[in-house]
Amino acid sequence: MASGTVEHAAEARLLTFDELRAALRQVGEERYHHQHPFHLLMHQGKLTRGQLQAWALNRYYYQSMIPIKDAIILSRSEDAAFRRAWRKRVVDHDGDANSAGGIQRWLKLGEAAGLDAARVASGREVLPATRYAVNEYLNIVRTRPLLEAVASSLTELFSRDLISLRMEKMRQHYPWLSGGLDYFEARLTQAPEDAAFAIEYVYEHAETRTQQEKVIQALRDKCDILWAQLDALYFAYVQPGWPPPGAFRVESEEKA
Amino acid sequence: MASGTVEHAAEARLLTFDELRAALRQVGEERYHHQHPFHLLMHQGKLTRGQLQAWALNRYYYQSMIPIKDAIILSRSEDAAFRRAWRKRVVDHDGDANSAGGIQRWLKLGEAAGLDAARVASGREVLPATRYAVNEYLNIVRTRPLLEAVASSLTELFSRDLISLRMEKMRQHYPWLSGGLDYFEARLTQAPEDAAFAIEYVYEHAETRTQQEKVIQALRDKCDILWAQLDALYFAYVQPGWPPPGAFRVESEEKA
Repeated sequence: MASGTVEHAAEARLLTFDELRAALRQVGEERYHHQHPFHLLMHQGKLTRGQLQAWALNRYYYQSMIPIKDAIILSRSEDAAFRRAWRKRVVDHDGDANSAGGIQRWLKLGEAAGLDAARVASGREVLPATRYAVNEYLNIVRTRPLLEAVASSLTELFSRDLISLRMEKMRQHYPWLSGGLDYFEARLTQAPEDAAFAIEYVYEHAETRTQQEKVIQALRDKCDILWAQLDALYFAYVQPGWPPPGAFRVESEEKA
Repeated sequence: MASGTVEHAAEARLLTFDELRAALRQVGEERYHHQHPFHLLMHQGKLTRGQLQAWALNRYYYQSMIPIKDAIILSRSEDAAFRRAWRKRVVDHDGDANSAGGIQRWLKLGEAAGLDAARVASGREVLPATRYAVNEYLNIVRTRPLLEAVASSLTELFSRDLISLRMEKMRQHYPWLSGGLDYFEARLTQAPEDAAFAIEYVYEHAETRTQQEKVIQALRDKCDILWAQLDALYFAYVQPGWPPPGAFRVESEEKA
């Protein structure tokens, strides 16, 4: 189940905090899904309502697994201070007495796109390839060292910029989605807080250059998971447009 | 991580052996990857050498995980008679003193396609989406009841026909691959033996209609895993032709 390569750098010197952050940012430039053609079409206003529905419905599966992913990470730390900090993520997504939480907010986005919350929440029409990619995220946080599990969250270093752009473009090109953007609004502040904690954590806990390289590789692997989800959407709903048996089908192809 | 739907059929009567087999065969008609456009192109002689290389290199990851999958199933049975029967599969793929085994034979296919065995075996250029789909197969056999883990192997009910056709078409359209077909030759007898054992097992051990429906669903899920691997190949190497960062790239596009 190995993925990618980690340089043999055991004897190399440790990266400084700034160097590590720069290396992580470089991974983002190369592999984060802000560059994916599906997102480019989205931001150019070229997706149909059906394609945006397919995106919202599939990405719901990702959203719904995030607090499970974070609960796995919680379960793997013997440090109560770490767990107190990390559990914020579970609350952010599952909600509490004061807040609906990210999963409910994502369902609002689906409704704005024209899909019943119950239909989205059922997960019945999700692409198999979406499930496989997201489940691999669970595999990673279950089976790799905690350091790498934490590092795999570091795509949040890049998400604020993408979310800001996406909100602007959605309001511009798909104004009928404007009522469903609460999820993104919340992430504008949550994601940078989480990323700041996680990057401090991996810097503090990677004690060798080899471990630092594994941190960087974990981020690469997470970027691949996000990328693969958009590949699957593009293949099924844009070009050639072949959803597999049982997956969500677009009913009308009018330009959104 | 739920996938698909299982009919609520607790009170329905048990299917007979013939009915269960017919239901499983129907899943194959609808979902087995013999219908996938990548295979159709392959059998029409329309794939380039580079596309066949991408197929051999990616499917190697699947082949390499099969004995691991079967070892997980072995590890989950408390019945020595079952384990004695099932371990044949590990031997078939890993080999023994008398036989190279399926993994080595697959590397020969890769060599016939023009790829170094070491390059294929490294797994470095495998599509992330291939790994996610195959790893989901491991997830299934690890986490679902043993009955369903066994049922997920039942695509072997259909593989003989596909392999026969593939060998014929490869000799016809890609004669330079002919020296690499030992893997398929061996599977012509191994797969039907394995399928006969597994279908008897699931019939004997599914004690309710609900369990029979879960057997059928496990086969559906396995078909989806095979299908998704070809979707990923098609997307990366046929149309639009976008391998993700780090994946195998076709060097020359001459018609094979």
